[in-house]
Amino acid sequence: MLKNDSELPPRILLGPGPSMANARVLDAMSHSMLGYLDPDFMVVLDEISDLIARLYKTKNLAMAIPGTGSAGMEAGFSSLLEPGDKVVMCLYGHFCERMFEMATRVGANVVPIRAQWGEPFPEELLENELKNHADVKLVTAIHGETSTGICQPLENISSITKEHGAMLMVDAVTTLGGTDLDVDKLSIDYAYSASQKCLGAPPGLSPVVVSDEAMATILSRKTKPYSWYLDLSLLANYWNERRIYHHTTPVSMMFGIREALNIIFEEGLENRFARHEKNAEILRSGLKSMQFDLLGSGKSRLNQITPVIIPPGVDGNEVADQLLREFNIEIGKGLGDFAGKIWRIGLMGESSQTEYVFAFLSALESVLIHQEFPL
Amino acid sequence: MLKNDSELPPRILLGPGPSMANARVLDAMSHSMLGYLDPDFMVVLDEISDLIARLYKTKNLAMAIPGTGSAGMEAGFSSLLEPGDKVVMCLYGHFCERMFEMATRVGANVVPIRAQWGEPFPEELLENELKNHADVKLVTAIHGETSTGICQPLENISSITKEHGAMLMVDAVTTLGGTDLDVDKLSIDYAYSASQKCLGAPPGLSPVVVSDEAMATILSRKTKPYSWYLDLSLLANYWNERRIYHHTTPVSMMFGIREALNIIFEEGLENRFARHEKNAEILRSGLKSMQFDLLGSGKSRLNQITPVIIPPGVDGNEVADQLLREFNIEIGKGLGDFAGKIWRIGLMGESSQTEYVFAFLSALESVLIHQEFPL
Repeated sequence: MLKNDSELPPRILLGPGPSMANARVLDAMSHSMLGYLDPDFMVVLDEISDLIARLYKTKNLAMAIPGTGSAGMEAGFSSLLEPGDKVVMCLYGHFCERMFEMATRVGANVVPIRAQWGEPFPEELLENELKNHADVKLVTAIHGETSTGICQPLENISSITKEHGAMLMVDAVTTLGGTDLDVDKLSIDYAYSASQKCLGAPPGLSPVVVSDEAMATILSRKTKPYSWYLDLSLLANYWNERRIYHHTTPVSMMFGIREALNIIFEEGLENRFARHEKNAEILRSGLKSMQFDLLGSGKSRLNQITPVIIPPGVDGNEVADQLLREFNIEIGKGLGDFAGKIWRIGLMGESSQTEYVFAFLSALESVLIHQEFPL
Repeated sequence: MLKNDSELPPRILLGPGPSMANARVLDAMSHSMLGYLDPDFMVVLDEISDLIARLYKTKNLAMAIPGTGSAGMEAGFSSLLEPGDKVVMCLYGHFCERMFEMATRVGANVVPIRAQWGEPFPEELLENELKNHADVKLVTAIHGETSTGICQPLENISSITKEHGAMLMVDAVTTLGGTDLDVDKLSIDYAYSASQKCLGAPPGLSPVVVSDEAMATILSRKTKPYSWYLDLSLLANYWNERRIYHHTTPVSMMFGIREALNIIFEEGLENRFARHEKNAEILRSGLKSMQFDLLGSGKSRLNQITPVIIPPGVDGNEVADQLLREFNIEIGKGLGDFAGKIWRIGLMGESSQTEYVFAFLSALESVLIHQEFPL
């Protein structure tokens, strides 16, 4: 039996994403189609490109790639790395391991540096590793590890990388639009994000920025990237003034992300970052007052994702399922090493609202009391 | 200066896609987000999978890949072929050449068979070529070549391929939902399409079907596919009952394609195919009565795309631009070998309406008279 749309539930999405979409964004997506080379659509693309660049605080080329955040990740690895190219990877969570998997698949010479999950990456490990190599092409890091709730400081990673003459690739999937990220100040050569977290749009697009050095490297490759669909040079030739047809761009998603970006700058970046911080603080205080232990501490805590250690005797999956069933509240479960050990409470973009924090805390209390767990 | 949505023009899209989206589809896309593992969203995914399989007339695994038709193309090549695997490719247009490019990039042993653009592929060329090889893994063809307006009969290609023990991959980007395609009868191992042509949804998803043999081949690969994002085995583990997280699926696009598929079966497949044929006939008659020459003839003519030879003395680009500027009608220009030589008039999905054909014919006449071209 087919379900009617009206039967689909309205959820409060406090998981790792998708976060809730702004109603104005969904409204913008209902505009009728435009062709992928329509002069009026070219204006829309240029606006999106300008707004993405402003959000990343960069003069670099900005585009929205036709896929999710993982497509942005893969576009980077498959375009920047040729088989045998050396990439040094700072690894401290599930999504870092996804990066490792992708770099390995494209045949790069991958040098992984694995560090403790749930803590910021110790930058001296990168410094020590880079001393052993003369030919590192790329260094990678994640700004906000969604699997562990860690916000990685990037200043030292950037300066160490640049001292050794390598390019820097940064995953900003969870942070862009919720935490400050200054791509030009950090000399980031390639960064990618996703439309459905702090941007307030549905999933399906990956906003990326590519430095001149990164593009020059791509254009001087000896071999073609394995991926045609995610070849950054072909994508760039559609987004730049050459306007060469590559793929049929997801028009509705573009209307949506344009509106989402406009909303971000109406709110103001600083206000938005402060809102993410304030609501995360309220959540953390509430959880601590309920005697929960949280992963991470101090500045390394990610405002977007709060990792809560599931207390002994509590069935974490059942609590999450009950929150969804009874209160329409979605939270995230643990991934990889953290499966079954933590909940991940996401407060990103439209989902970062104090009333949702209150609703979640009360609902959690209700579920735990129901499970006869002493708070 | 930012444009308001209300300033975006309403276009009649008679190009190669995107075609117009059904208003109900755009409406369905405005539903609020659901998580990618929400039990209610799993119901939506299962419905989509069932409807895609019905549309392709197959019992094979059906999924909607998070990218455009080209992502479906690349998922096939990167998942089905390992470096050195032999693929014999029937090539007769621009999108065939895109397939060739992708197969080459993943390191396959590519055997191209190039035939005349604008005519159906001569199947004896495939038969002759396959006699020379004992180890062909895959044969590829395009059902409807959007660049030339050719509808390729697949019965003989299928039987020749199967006689030689190879798998068959078919591009159904332009045909699915507008022309009959019986995947099980044709023993097609992998077919892919796009959401924005005959399906009546916006671009951004690629509905694909994968045979058991194709999936077994993927699961027994010696090497991992270069692409993680488009790895059909990982995508399958999200769409099948295992429900393993892979990417954050484009939720709104899924709501949209579900509604588009429902609309297709409300109209009925046979009615829909007949509508595409009728409107293409009206267009062809109108163009012929205006003394235009068309590419192709007989059954090989694609109802979705009508290729019109630009008469000598007519500036084809200027005519297309004028149709857009003055009448809000988009038509397609030529691609590759056909650049500057043909117009491509698309009548697909929602865009296949008799009133749009009439509007186009009258507008074209008006533009040509304005250009002082004797009709």
